[in-house]
Amino acid sequence: MAPADLPAPSSRTARPPVVRSVAELRDLCTRALGAPSSARGRVAFVPTMGALHRGHLALVEEASRRGTFVVVSIFVNPTQFGPHEDFSRYPRNLDADLDALAPLLSQASHAAGAVFAPDVAEMYPPGDETRVHVGALAEPLCGRFRPGHFEGVATVVAKLFCAVGPCTAVLGRKDYQQLLVVRRMARDLLLDVEVVGYPIVREADGLAMSSRNAYLSASERARALALARGLSAAAKAFARGQRDARRLEAEARAPVEAVATSIDYVEVRNAETLAACEGSVTGRTVLAIACHVGSTRLIDNLVLGEDPPPLAS
Amino acid sequence: MAPADLPAPSSRTARPPVVRSVAELRDLCTRALGAPSSARGRVAFVPTMGALHRGHLALVEEASRRGTFVVVSIFVNPTQFGPHEDFSRYPRNLDADLDALAPLLSQASHAAGAVFAPDVAEMYPPGDETRVHVGALAEPLCGRFRPGHFEGVATVVAKLFCAVGPCTAVLGRKDYQQLLVVRRMARDLLLDVEVVGYPIVREADGLAMSSRNAYLSASERARALALARGLSAAAKAFARGQRDARRLEAEARAPVEAVATSIDYVEVRNAETLAACEGSVTGRTVLAIACHVGSTRLIDNLVLGEDPPPLAS
Repeated sequence: MAPADLPAPSSRTARPPVVRSVAELRDLCTRALGAPSSARGRVAFVPTMGALHRGHLALVEEASRRGTFVVVSIFVNPTQFGPHEDFSRYPRNLDADLDALAPLLSQASHAAGAVFAPDVAEMYPPGDETRVHVGALAEPLCGRFRPGHFEGVATVVAKLFCAVGPCTAVLGRKDYQQLLVVRRMARDLLLDVEVVGYPIVREADGLAMSSRNAYLSASERARALALARGLSAAAKAFARGQRDARRLEAEARAPVEAVATSIDYVEVRNAETLAACEGSVTGRTVLAIACHVGSTRLIDNLVLGEDPPPLAS
Repeated sequence: MAPADLPAPSSRTARPPVVRSVAELRDLCTRALGAPSSARGRVAFVPTMGALHRGHLALVEEASRRGTFVVVSIFVNPTQFGPHEDFSRYPRNLDADLDALAPLLSQASHAAGAVFAPDVAEMYPPGDETRVHVGALAEPLCGRFRPGHFEGVATVVAKLFCAVGPCTAVLGRKDYQQLLVVRRMARDLLLDVEVVGYPIVREADGLAMSSRNAYLSASERARALALARGLSAAAKAFARGQRDARRLEAEARAPVEAVATSIDYVEVRNAETLAACEGSVTGRTVLAIACHVGSTRLIDNLVLGEDPPPLAS
């Protein structure tokens, strides 16, 4: 195509403005449309699979501090469950969830809000095959043991972010790798969402809150404390100056090994990239555990030197 | 987690509203924020790789009819080029492109607008590995001959849609499979974007406009007309009642075979799903051609019974 084929620019016609960054572009669009710069900019979002516990409610409270309108999604996402996982028996109780959210999302409290509870066909329209992959971040830890899990997570959260249009999303740090995967997905897709990680909320005895704790029998519930015990042992060793990656893992592993039905991993990893640690740990380091107690898969983690040991004693 | 663990709902606290569709959700957010429902809702977007020709300008004109603010992106996207393709020599001339757009995007004309011309690091921040896959739609036709191409297309257009936030995007139908891939990606990711396909713009002699036509020597330019000739032959056979898939392909293939350096495909496919046609064609059917003339890869297509034959005679 020769340039001569194009309409000749008039010397009096101003060239259009050129912007080179996404941030500039968004500003320009917003100004051009005469919309308030805060339009859609104050939605804070908490994605959940329901079966809400106090950990979730803490996320909603954090969201209501960060947005003027809070959206909580309740969606048990089929694409993040493997064929032999607990999709069909995952606890579902919308009534109880709405009751739990009522005090937090009423007009009378700090932030108004709504619950987004789509069915599967709303999130995965007929013929849907589109999937989002984030690459290497999704490969270690749970990615090794739950093939396809983080593809399902990145995909559904991308869809939810596109649908909700939040400025902020608040996720729990218990699913530490999930938090990093979602943050990476949002950044890479140029979604204008700040992904905030909220500290793990624990029961009084140190067990990390999880909807899956409902699966535990009384004796399994007691054994499940081994994760917090392992993290605490490693955190205390780190506080005493232990920096050897394998020794820190061994500290955490011992109490878990004593009671777990099986262990998926007990690993120290770079807290931002999840790169493996060889020799001494340097920089921000996460210690993450996944194991089965009975048939229930449990995970827990802490960032060494930052998060307090889950068990005081 | 026992429900007893949750704060007891007060009998006077109203439950939050529950919405089950993305559309309801968007409405609710917009109303909650007090923003005009048209906020960010009138941006019309034309994604391009620059080297603009009259085909692109027709897309921009269509966009200006559909939006109050038109964004044209100019970005030669590295991830949609294979290692032996023409990324490095793809024509780039931002000055000429801006001159061409000036009359269409000036404040004085129907729609104000801007050009988004990011660099590669803006679109692919350091460490970016996130990719979008649309599944089976991306597999046949160009997908077979350009591995990874539609992953690159779906990924960059998803990023652009997230960055620009358009209500409408206008794409040319010359890249027919790309149009379907982008439409599917937007639908599946719940992006609130109408993806409009605009008819192929042709030179006076019938050659589909393409930035890659600039690669053609004078003699190759003459040979390149074979694509339009093949499409016309098949369109005329279809008009005479020919419905056999293989015969329609043979009609189109003969003139291409006579002059092309190599043929990637000459195929009839379902125009919505790109499913293969066996026996007689039924429903909307696209006839698509990809071939090389010299070292230049050219594509062209038409929807049988809808699009006029590119050549009158």
